[in-house]
Amino acid sequence: MNVQTHQRSGEQVTPRPLESYLGGEWLKGSGEARLLRDAATGAPVAMIDATGFDMAGALDFGRAVGGPALRAMTFHQRALMLKQMGLWLMERKNEFYALSYATGATRQDGWIDIEGGIGTMLSYGSKGRRELPNTHMLVDGPVEPLSKDNSFSGVHVMNPLEGVAVHINAFNFPCWGMLEKLAPTWLAGMPAIVKPASQTAYLTELMVRRMIDSGILPNGTLQLVCGSVGDLLDHLTPQDVVTFTGSASTGRKLKTHPAVIENSVRFTMEADSLNCAILGPDSDPGSEEFELCVREIVREMTVKAGQKCTAIRRVIVPRERSEALVKALKDRLARAKIGLPSDEETRLGPLASLEQRKEIRSRVALLSQEAEVVSGGRNVAQSANIDWDAGAFVEPTLLFCDKPMEWSLVHDVEAFGPVATVMPYDEPEEAAALAVRGRGSLVSSLFTNDPGVARKIVGSLAPWHGRILIANRANAKTSTGHGSPLPVLVHGGPGRAGGGEELGGIRSVKHYMQRTAMQGSPDMLAEIAGRWIDGAQGNSEEIHPFRKSLAELKIGDQLVTGARKVTLEDIEHFADFTGDTFYAHMDEQAAKANPFFDGRVAHGYLIVSFAAGLFVDPASGPVLANYGVDNLRFMTPVYPGDSMQVILTCKEISPRETEEYGEVRWDCVITNQDNDLVASYDVLTLVAKERPV
Amino acid sequence: MNVQTHQRSGEQVTPRPLESYLGGEWLKGSGEARLLRDAATGAPVAMIDATGFDMAGALDFGRAVGGPALRAMTFHQRALMLKQMGLWLMERKNEFYALSYATGATRQDGWIDIEGGIGTMLSYGSKGRRELPNTHMLVDGPVEPLSKDNSFSGVHVMNPLEGVAVHINAFNFPCWGMLEKLAPTWLAGMPAIVKPASQTAYLTELMVRRMIDSGILPNGTLQLVCGSVGDLLDHLTPQDVVTFTGSASTGRKLKTHPAVIENSVRFTMEADSLNCAILGPDSDPGSEEFELCVREIVREMTVKAGQKCTAIRRVIVPRERSEALVKALKDRLARAKIGLPSDEETRLGPLASLEQRKEIRSRVALLSQEAEVVSGGRNVAQSANIDWDAGAFVEPTLLFCDKPMEWSLVHDVEAFGPVATVMPYDEPEEAAALAVRGRGSLVSSLFTNDPGVARKIVGSLAPWHGRILIANRANAKTSTGHGSPLPVLVHGGPGRAGGGEELGGIRSVKHYMQRTAMQGSPDMLAEIAGRWIDGAQGNSEEIHPFRKSLAELKIGDQLVTGARKVTLEDIEHFADFTGDTFYAHMDEQAAKANPFFDGRVAHGYLIVSFAAGLFVDPASGPVLANYGVDNLRFMTPVYPGDSMQVILTCKEISPRETEEYGEVRWDCVITNQDNDLVASYDVLTLVAKERPV
Repeated sequence: MNVQTHQRSGEQVTPRPLESYLGGEWLKGSGEARLLRDAATGAPVAMIDATGFDMAGALDFGRAVGGPALRAMTFHQRALMLKQMGLWLMERKNEFYALSYATGATRQDGWIDIEGGIGTMLSYGSKGRRELPNTHMLVDGPVEPLSKDNSFSGVHVMNPLEGVAVHINAFNFPCWGMLEKLAPTWLAGMPAIVKPASQTAYLTELMVRRMIDSGILPNGTLQLVCGSVGDLLDHLTPQDVVTFTGSASTGRKLKTHPAVIENSVRFTMEADSLNCAILGPDSDPGSEEFELCVREIVREMTVKAGQKCTAIRRVIVPRERSEALVKALKDRLARAKIGLPSDEETRLGPLASLEQRKEIRSRVALLSQEAEVVSGGRNVAQSANIDWDAGAFVEPTLLFCDKPMEWSLVHDVEAFGPVATVMPYDEPEEAAALAVRGRGSLVSSLFTNDPGVARKIVGSLAPWHGRILIANRANAKTSTGHGSPLPVLVHGGPGRAGGGEELGGIRSVKHYMQRTAMQGSPDMLAEIAGRWIDGAQGNSEEIHPFRKSLAELKIGDQLVTGARKVTLEDIEHFADFTGDTFYAHMDEQAAKANPFFDGRVAHGYLIVSFAAGLFVDPASGPVLANYGVDNLRFMTPVYPGDSMQVILTCKEISPRETEEYGEVRWDCVITNQDNDLVASYDVLTLVAKERPV
Repeated sequence: MNVQTHQRSGEQVTPRPLESYLGGEWLKGSGEARLLRDAATGAPVAMIDATGFDMAGALDFGRAVGGPALRAMTFHQRALMLKQMGLWLMERKNEFYALSYATGATRQDGWIDIEGGIGTMLSYGSKGRRELPNTHMLVDGPVEPLSKDNSFSGVHVMNPLEGVAVHINAFNFPCWGMLEKLAPTWLAGMPAIVKPASQTAYLTELMVRRMIDSGILPNGTLQLVCGSVGDLLDHLTPQDVVTFTGSASTGRKLKTHPAVIENSVRFTMEADSLNCAILGPDSDPGSEEFELCVREIVREMTVKAGQKCTAIRRVIVPRERSEALVKALKDRLARAKIGLPSDEETRLGPLASLEQRKEIRSRVALLSQEAEVVSGGRNVAQSANIDWDAGAFVEPTLLFCDKPMEWSLVHDVEAFGPVATVMPYDEPEEAAALAVRGRGSLVSSLFTNDPGVARKIVGSLAPWHGRILIANRANAKTSTGHGSPLPVLVHGGPGRAGGGEELGGIRSVKHYMQRTAMQGSPDMLAEIAGRWIDGAQGNSEEIHPFRKSLAELKIGDQLVTGARKVTLEDIEHFADFTGDTFYAHMDEQAAKANPFFDGRVAHGYLIVSFAAGLFVDPASGPVLANYGVDNLRFMTPVYPGDSMQVILTCKEISPRETEEYGEVRWDCVITNQDNDLVASYDVLTLVAKERPV
C-alpha cells in the first residue's frame, strides 16, 4: 500500500529502481533507467533498467545450478513445490493487489491476474500429483513390441530439457502471465528466466521477490530480468525453450532470431488475435442467449480495459438483430463507470499507459476506414476524480461494419483496449466465414441454444481456433466466460494467434521435455525407464509380492499362480449369483451363432474374479486396496473345461510424498492351458510404505 | 528394367522429361530442364523442370478439392485407403526396384526405400483402424468438468487442418521419404503436395504416377512438383503445413520464409545429424556387443552408401579398445565390395551423384584437420566393371580423432556418405559428453550388456536424442538396427537434427490436426463431438440398449437399472467361490485397521460382476461380446447392506468398415443408496450392425 499512497500524494519521491534476480543475486542495472508511471495518475512508480547484466552467465547458472536441482526431484516433489508456492503467494495476495492498482487493474482485474495466476499454479500442483507418476522419467504411450519373441521392443520416454526456459511475457498480466508458464516449466523439471514487459514489471518483480524469499525454490530455478534481455537470445542452445506472449510483430522477430533458428530452439508464441463472439441465428432479442451475449461482450470490453489477448474484438450477429444488439451494447457500455482502479464502483480502469492509449486511438482511426463508430466519446459514466490527461483512461468504443465480407482491416487490426466491431451476417455459413477471416484466433464464442447450429458453426471454426465457448442458458450461471484461459484447457491458437499452445493440463508440461524412443531388450528398457516392460524378466521369489511393503517391493517382482479349471458349473453358478445370464454364457446354440464363440463361454468378469482368487494373498499386509483396473482386454474366450493361470508383475511404483502409502501398478496376464492369452490388464493397488508392525 | 538397360547401352536417347501432377493434370515444365544421370554409369535418366506452374493454384486445388474429399471420409475409411494403396504399390514393387538402381541403390538399399516406405503406409493403415475411432473428429484426452453441477465442461477435440501439407523431401529416400509423410497426413485428413529432391525425383514420379493410376485417391489428395517449388511458399496460409527433410542450411532458410513466419505455418524439420555409436566400457573385443557394434557401424557406412540421416557418423569407444575396433572396422570395410547397384555382390553402391561425391570429399578434407584417415582409398574390394569417373563411387573412409573433446569439426561436419570418425573416451561420462557435442541427434546406439552402464549413459543422452538403441546379445538377432526409423517410434531429434518429430504412430497424425478446447454444456459438447460427454442427458427408452443394433443405437442411449443390495453373505460367497479371501473382505478387525475402510467391504470384482448382472440383457441379440473394460476406478467402498445401482450410457459408436459389427463404448457408473459414486468405467462391447433376423 505504501508505494501507491506515496505516489498519489504527489510529493516528489525518487521511484524505486527495479532489480533483476540473476545468478542468485538481486542486481540493479548500470544504464539509464526508464521511468514507469501509475496508469491512472501518472505518478512515478518505478525505474527499470537491465544494462550490464551477464545474460550468458544467467543462462549458464540456470543450466548448471537450477536444472540439476529440479531434475533431482520427482514429479510429485515438484508438484508439491508448486502447491507450497501457490499457498505461500495466496497468503500474500493483498500486497500484490495493492501494487496492482498502479497497473490500471481494478480489484476484479487484479483477481484474474493474481488469484487466477496462483490458482493456475495450484492446479498444476494438484494435477501433477494426480496424473503423473512419482518418478523422474515419464513413459509416454504404450510399449511397442518390435520382435515376435519379445527380445526387442520400443518405448517412448520423456525427460526434462537440460536448458533454461526463457519466458518473455506481456504487460497485461504481470502475475498470471508469469505463473501460468512457470507451473508447467517447473513441473517438467526446467528452470526459468522470466522477462516481464517493462510497463508493469514492478508487480512481477514483487511477486518474484516473494517467491525467492519463500525459500521454497532450489537455487537457480527462477531468475528475473527487469528491462531488456540484451544479448540473452544469442546464447541459446538446443536445450533451451523460449515462450513469447505479446504482439505478433515482436514475436516474429524473436522467432527468427538466428540462435533460435540455428539451434532449433522450441519457440511458443501466443499473440493477440481478432477473437469473435457469434450470436446464433436462433438467439432472438429477449432470449437468454442474446442477453448472455450482450453481457459477455460488455465484460470482455471492460475487464482489464479490454487489454486481454482473449478479448472479443469482433461481434458477428444476424443482420436483422444487429440493431437490437448494438442498442443493448451501447446502453450497457454507457453505464460501465470509468474510474480509478482502486474505486470499488469502477467497471473500466485505465489502460496500462498513455502510450497504449495513443496506440489504440490510431488503431480505432484505422478501423474507422471500414466501420462506423457507433458508441464512444466521453459521454459515459465516469468518476469525478479522474484526470483524463495524466491517466490512461479511454472510453469504450463500439464500431459497426456493415459489409464485413468486403473489408479486411476489421479482421486484421487489433485495438488492444475496450474496442470491438459489430458485423452482421446473412447466412450461418457467413458467420463462420467471417470468424475465419481473423486468420486464426485464441478463442471464439458462440451464443446459441440450437445444437444443430452449434455443430455446424463449431465444425467450421474448430481448425482456426484454440478454444471455442458455446454459451447457452444451461451454463449461463456456471460458465467461466469467453476470456478466461483455464489451466486444464489449452490456450493458444493457430495462425495470427501465434501457433502456440500453453496450459491444457499435463500437455504443456511436455513442452519442456524431450520425447525419446528407446529400443532394446525389455530387460534393458525396464532398467532405464524404472518401469517393468512387457517381455522383461520377472523376479519370482518365495515371498508373495503382496507381502512386500513399498520399501521392499521392486519393479519386476512377480507371482506366477497355479492353474484353475473353469467348469460349466462355475459359469452357471456365476450367472445365477450375479444375474448376468447373457446368452453367450447360457445358451450353447446362441453362443455358437455368435461370430466370436464356438459355444458357451465364461463371463469376462468371472475370469477376472477367478484371477484375483489366484493372485491375491489373503493375509493382512502392506497391500491396502485395489483401487482400479486399466486397459482390460479379453483376447481368447474361456470355454468350460479350459484352465487359467495368472502372471502378476509389479510394473510401476509411485510412493506418495505426503502419505504413508503409494500406488502400485501390476501387470496382469491370464493364459489358458495352451498358453493362449486370455486377458491382460493393469491392476491398481494402494500399498503401505512400511509393513504393519 | 528397360530404362536402365537402355541407358547402359550408351546409345543416344533423349531422356524422359519428368512431369509434375498439379490440379489433377500431368504437366511438363516450360523452362530449361536439368539432366539427371544414373548414379553408377552417368547415363542420362531423366530431365527435370517445373518452370511455369501455378503453385498458388495447386495449393488452392488441394484446399478446395482434396481437403473436403478427405474430410468427408472417417478415420477408418482413410486408414483403409492407406492399406489399399500399400497393397497396390507392393504389387508393383519390381517396377520401382528396377528404376531404383539408377539412384545408386542396391537391392538391399531399395528394400529400405521401397518396401520400407510401403510398409510404413500399411502400418498406418492398420494402426489407424486399431487406435482411432471410426469418426471424423478425434476426442483428445479426458472430459474436464468445469462446474460442480455438471452444467459446464470442457473437452479437447482434434480436426484436420484445412490447408495442404507441403512435403519437401530428401534425395536419399525417394519412396520412403514420401510415403512416411503421406501416411499420417492422409490419415489425419489433409491433402499433400510432394516435392522430391531433384536428383532422384524420377523414382518418386513413377510411384506417384502409380498412385494416381490406382484410382484409390480422391481427386486433389496428392500433387507432385518435380523441380523447383518456385513461389509456392509465398502462398501458404495458417492452415497449411510444411515438412522438410534435408540439409540444415536449406531447412533454416525455409523455416524463416516470411509466409511461414507470418502465418505461423507448422514447420517440421528433419536434418542430418552427427549420430553416434557408443561402445560400452564393458564390451571387450570378443564380446557379442563388440561384434554387434562392428557389424552395425559397417552396415551404417555401407547401406545406401552411408547416405542416411540416421547413419553413424561418430564412433565413441573406450580408449583401450579403440585400436581393436579400428582394426576390426578396417578389415570389414575392406571386404565390403564396391560395385554396380544391380550386382548382387555389391555391398556399397555409388552415391546419388558426382556432386555428392565432390561434397563428401571436401567434408572429409575438413574432418582431416582434426582426425586422421585410417582407412580409405581405392584399395578395397571392387567389381571389375565399375567406372570411377562416370559413376559416383566412393571408398568408405574411417577417421580417427585422438582428442575429440578438444575438437569441434568432428562433431559438426557431416560427410553424407560412407564416412565415420572413431573417437576414444576415457570415462563413461566422457562418452555421453562426446555424444552431446553433436548438439542434438536423430539416433544414437549404445552397445552394452550392463544395465548400470545403459542407465547412466542413456540418462545423459536422452534429452539430446529422438531415438536411442541399446544393442546387446539379447536382441542381436531381432534388432531392427541403428539406422531404421520405424513407423511406431518417433523419428526426429532436437537441435542440429532439426527439432522435428515424425512417425511415432498416431502422434504424427496429430501434427496435421488442430487441437481445440471446446467449452459448454455437456449436451452441447456431446452433440458437436459425436460422443457422449459426462453430464449430458441420457435417453432412457422402453427398449434395452443391448437390443439395438449399431444402426439403431444412438449416442446417449441409456439404461438405468434397479438397485441390488450387497449382503455379507454375498461377499463371503464370492470369496469362497473365487478364492479371493483378501483380509479387507473377510476380517472385520483387519479391514477396520486399513486406512480406507470402516469394516469389511465387497470385492471390487464382485461389484462389477453384480453391475453386469444388473445391466446385461440376456437374450440373444446384436450385442456380441464384452471385449474389455477401460479406466475402472473404485471410489466409495461397498459395505454389507449397501445397495448399488448402475447407469449405462452409450458413449462412442465405431462401426467397422469391413465387418458386420463395430465397437461400442459404454459409460458405466455405479452409485450406492446415498448416490455416492461407487465405481466408474467404460465397458467395451462388439455390436452387430444389424439385428439378427
